[in-house]
Amino acid sequence: MQPFKVYILGCGSALPTLKHNASSQVVLVRDKMFMVDCGEGTQVQLRRSRINFNKLSAIFISHLHGDHCFGLIGLISTLGMLGRISPLHVFAPKDFFPILQQQLDLFCNGLEYEVVFHVVDTKRNDVIYEDKSLTVSSIPLEHRVACCGYLFREKPTLPHIRRDMIDFYGIPECQRNNIKNGADWITADGDVIPNSYLTFPADPPRSYAYCSDTRYMPELYRMVENVDLLYHEATYCSENENRAKLYYHSTARQAAMVALKAKVKRLVVGHFSARYENEDVILKEAQELFPNTDLANEMAVFDV
Amino acid sequence: MQPFKVYILGCGSALPTLKHNASSQVVLVRDKMFMVDCGEGTQVQLRRSRINFNKLSAIFISHLHGDHCFGLIGLISTLGMLGRISPLHVFAPKDFFPILQQQLDLFCNGLEYEVVFHVVDTKRNDVIYEDKSLTVSSIPLEHRVACCGYLFREKPTLPHIRRDMIDFYGIPECQRNNIKNGADWITADGDVIPNSYLTFPADPPRSYAYCSDTRYMPELYRMVENVDLLYHEATYCSENENRAKLYYHSTARQAAMVALKAKVKRLVVGHFSARYENEDVILKEAQELFPNTDLANEMAVFDV
Repeated sequence: MQPFKVYILGCGSALPTLKHNASSQVVLVRDKMFMVDCGEGTQVQLRRSRINFNKLSAIFISHLHGDHCFGLIGLISTLGMLGRISPLHVFAPKDFFPILQQQLDLFCNGLEYEVVFHVVDTKRNDVIYEDKSLTVSSIPLEHRVACCGYLFREKPTLPHIRRDMIDFYGIPECQRNNIKNGADWITADGDVIPNSYLTFPADPPRSYAYCSDTRYMPELYRMVENVDLLYHEATYCSENENRAKLYYHSTARQAAMVALKAKVKRLVVGHFSARYENEDVILKEAQELFPNTDLANEMAVFDV
Repeated sequence: MQPFKVYILGCGSALPTLKHNASSQVVLVRDKMFMVDCGEGTQVQLRRSRINFNKLSAIFISHLHGDHCFGLIGLISTLGMLGRISPLHVFAPKDFFPILQQQLDLFCNGLEYEVVFHVVDTKRNDVIYEDKSLTVSSIPLEHRVACCGYLFREKPTLPHIRRDMIDFYGIPECQRNNIKNGADWITADGDVIPNSYLTFPADPPRSYAYCSDTRYMPELYRMVENVDLLYHEATYCSENENRAKLYYHSTARQAAMVALKAKVKRLVVGHFSARYENEDVILKEAQELFPNTDLANEMAVFDV
């Protein structure tokens, strides 16, 4: 099966500390690599993770708080110094681009690759990126500034050929595509060999949703229904529910509620407030409602 | 003696790596704290160093390459989140301020302290900051963009009172300032006790010069003559002298030449190219000409 992985580069909140880096993740879908959010220090985390810098094709920014985007200009600059020539696509709320353009003009004069801007309407639940392997959709969130999450959804693949059956029936290579696309096989004697004898079902398409930063949204589950992996911010525990509401963040319990209602397979929580010496309290609170929860952590890798 | 220390937070070049952070230092002069340059990741280095964030009063930026200033907006933002109310003075080449202002408007709305801009004319060798303890001067350097170093020079202090002699002669406290300012003491019997009996000489004022980034400047020594500590970039060894010239950087030998001609007491070299697995080669090359050389390193502290 082709890879679909999420690499956590940073899962702290508000500001980078010695314990947690500012928000950033890399999402690998088959042979495509994307970044979600880019807080300060992300480029060094990328080095630490040993991910191949060059394969990054697009960066999605959820919102314009510094802990989600201060690292971008540095990363763009470094990619240039490392010899990048292929375009880099940046998806972000519209207010980002005037300032990013100024930074590019001042600091990245002579950059040898193109930085392509894509304005994201954070109020809409739309496909904003598509290629042959996947789509990426915006997920409107509720935060102090315009903010959206991102949903990475693989496209369905074709069924797998059963090599043994193909050989048994002597089906030529040139017929392979037809078989993959559902055709039966008719032997020289006129027997119809059903497609189901000749193929294994396709792997079900996988999906990953990133939801940070956001207040609890009772209807959010509709937009992330049945995803294989959900990353939902859990800045606080429930004892701080009022503070969460005030600052448009979520508690662990609320993250778990979204996961439960959405019937996701697995929940990862992150964006931890620095007040928690040990985030196990956050984990336990989420697990009470949604047992298949994990804590994000720098350098953790999650298979979708 | 009052402290005069230089804390190295980052001494890499061009981009942050796992080995070296981007350029930044903190200079502590008596009770005043200043930062020189602020590459990406500086705020976390500041935490790591356990320096008291709040005491920072001014930040001096040498030039507008990202490895010297990408960390500033994040630091400003974090200082705000940590409750700063006193002004922060930022000294930088003029082109920095439009973009810094945009960043403040977008990311630091409601910042509860003032960020005061001071344009530095990088072509001039002028006092650009002064208080009761010290002056800071700009040192014009030669780089690919407008660039200057900074010279921190303590003001002379008053001589120290010889407590034993003051007590011996029964000199009242109210006369202390006069004695410190050079007055002799006349006893009840009319004897003149010379000031030199009553005081120890003042500590000689100390100075620190930061020179990065720059090509070799044969006349630079005039501007940093006799400083106690000189930090001079040594991006390359002499085998790369042509490359140094091309990119407006210096070799270790050239840094040492400046130190030698300027008769500084001690040289610290930094801003190392990532090509050097081990910077001892840089150190040795500098020491051949100027033995009292040290390598900068993250978390190193130099007493001036």
